[in-house]
Amino acid sequence: LTAVAELDTPVLVVDLDRVEHNVRRLQAYCDEHGLALRPHVKTHKLPQLAQLQLDAGAAGLACQKLGEAEVMADAGFDDLLVTFPVLGPAKTERLAALARRARIGVAADSEAVADGISRSVAAVGAEVVVLVDCDTGYGRTGVQSPAAAVELARHVAGLPGLRFGGLATYPSTPATAGWLREAVEAVERAGLEVERVSGGGTPLAYRTHELGIVTELRAGTYVYGDRACAANGSVPLDDCALHVVATVVSRPTLDRAIVDAGSKALTSDLAAGADGYGRLLEHPEADIVQLSEEHGWLDVSRCARPPELGEVVTILPNHACAATNLYDEVVVHRSGEVLDTWPVAARGLLR
Amino acid sequence: LTAVAELDTPVLVVDLDRVEHNVRRLQAYCDEHGLALRPHVKTHKLPQLAQLQLDAGAAGLACQKLGEAEVMADAGFDDLLVTFPVLGPAKTERLAALARRARIGVAADSEAVADGISRSVAAVGAEVVVLVDCDTGYGRTGVQSPAAAVELARHVAGLPGLRFGGLATYPSTPATAGWLREAVEAVERAGLEVERVSGGGTPLAYRTHELGIVTELRAGTYVYGDRACAANGSVPLDDCALHVVATVVSRPTLDRAIVDAGSKALTSDLAAGADGYGRLLEHPEADIVQLSEEHGWLDVSRCARPPELGEVVTILPNHACAATNLYDEVVVHRSGEVLDTWPVAARGLLR
Repeated sequence: LTAVAELDTPVLVVDLDRVEHNVRRLQAYCDEHGLALRPHVKTHKLPQLAQLQLDAGAAGLACQKLGEAEVMADAGFDDLLVTFPVLGPAKTERLAALARRARIGVAADSEAVADGISRSVAAVGAEVVVLVDCDTGYGRTGVQSPAAAVELARHVAGLPGLRFGGLATYPSTPATAGWLREAVEAVERAGLEVERVSGGGTPLAYRTHELGIVTELRAGTYVYGDRACAANGSVPLDDCALHVVATVVSRPTLDRAIVDAGSKALTSDLAAGADGYGRLLEHPEADIVQLSEEHGWLDVSRCARPPELGEVVTILPNHACAATNLYDEVVVHRSGEVLDTWPVAARGLLR
Repeated sequence: LTAVAELDTPVLVVDLDRVEHNVRRLQAYCDEHGLALRPHVKTHKLPQLAQLQLDAGAAGLACQKLGEAEVMADAGFDDLLVTFPVLGPAKTERLAALARRARIGVAADSEAVADGISRSVAAVGAEVVVLVDCDTGYGRTGVQSPAAAVELARHVAGLPGLRFGGLATYPSTPATAGWLREAVEAVERAGLEVERVSGGGTPLAYRTHELGIVTELRAGTYVYGDRACAANGSVPLDDCALHVVATVVSRPTLDRAIVDAGSKALTSDLAAGADGYGRLLEHPEADIVQLSEEHGWLDVSRCARPPELGEVVTILPNHACAATNLYDEVVVHRSGEVLDTWPVAARGLLR
């Protein structure tokens, strides 16, 4: 058996015991509160972990880009929700092709997006479920008011190839409950059925039941956890399952160590509530103060026993989803014993 | 002929006319001042552009990671300098294998790194040139003083399989000249020949001759330019050759537009001297104020004619090298007419 610490670095490793724990934990919460759980595959991009999530009781999968949905459909999964605006014939035709081989849902926030999807999907005699994307305060995509949600829902309901399925928002913080309730009531008053209110986000996932209006939770990062999750409490540090294993390749001064993991191994993403570019598990007093593309710069001045040249260290990345996207493969282990290497099948699929 | 503006988005595109201009311009500068130019392949990761740089007169190539050097050796290129500390038997054995089929140089900043390389290279009867990596003020890797440079140079010169070749530093700003001169003189007093003083960095590339001591310039970003280069003046905006073509997929409010290029298309890297995550060529008054993984958030409140839903926009990324690393392929064009699609052959090679 190979030990994770013996792998050539930098390498992205996944603790399967912890993944299983994280999957069971959020599924149990959703089961307890009668919420459908729809894991977001953008975090892991792995059919193997999507299977694990579905086996645990997930209702379906969420995908951010069409390419991710195609990988998941190729792996045999049904009931895929694409939560990104699908716009332009090149993409709506791919969506229509998907709808011929799997149950497909999409979120839409404009008539133009709905019209384009309708044209392509109706042309092949398929159907997709459309959720009206609602901006409940995050300020990204989404209709701007419950009245606008009603208007778009009516429009969708009248288009061939589309079935209005309800509302979607991100993130579904407790503060969004009023907006969503008002929109649901207004859509129902307009004579349309709201089958589903889909919310999302790992940070407040375990408070979703407080809203009383969300019926489905989309969450991605919960499967791995990361430094942001550890800081916001959604995944405790000891449950985090994704790490970058790196090596100290230079110790130029007493206070400085350089590891072989820079922005191309960790991303430049910061984590709210935590300084620097990651956390060294073996040296929590060391700060990753700066990154260049291949170098991580550690300030080890606070370390009683600073990392030595050649030492292998384990870094918890700030942002799991973005880190995953940098690697062609992940090494899967249990308690540090390597089980397998998986290609990150849906990596880099931007379209 | 396909036009760049008709490509499905997001897509990374390279303007070959501008690349050729940028390559000629820095080569002409180096020729004028008697400097060897060693382009850094970490920016483009493409054998095709390495060939173009060598054809223009480059003395060899610089690679940050062994994997990049292996791709370039596979493409038939000789004289490769690996500027990252090569540590551990897995890597030194790969370096030794490279040294059997190409002229290989490495930078080293510790006896441990030199010893490891020596063992593997001598074992296969090969030779590599070692440059002593000097920290002349940047605070990353490198020996800390001219005296330490002498000490490591002597050590290297005594090891089998290694040939001491001179000094290397990054970046070689005018302020580093004194450090380097002192080190060169001290090494020569110790009886060792300094064949080469290798400096680097695009931002101050065109001032390298001012140092009077650097004989070789390593530069990567100059080939493409990016928003940081435009801000520091090393590559004018109109010479920048690498862009992300994206589509406006949502116009939720009058002041906000969302494009299909987020941190997985642009990176989260910031550019010194420029706010936000990139520059929209068609709408310079629009600011890319925030990124999530697949979404770019534009503040279009200052635009007289803001981008419309479905509009295709051209984004100059903050950091070319990091953006390249996100894409499996680049589309090559001249004046917006597509010529070819190239796999980014050395993408994601972290080891």
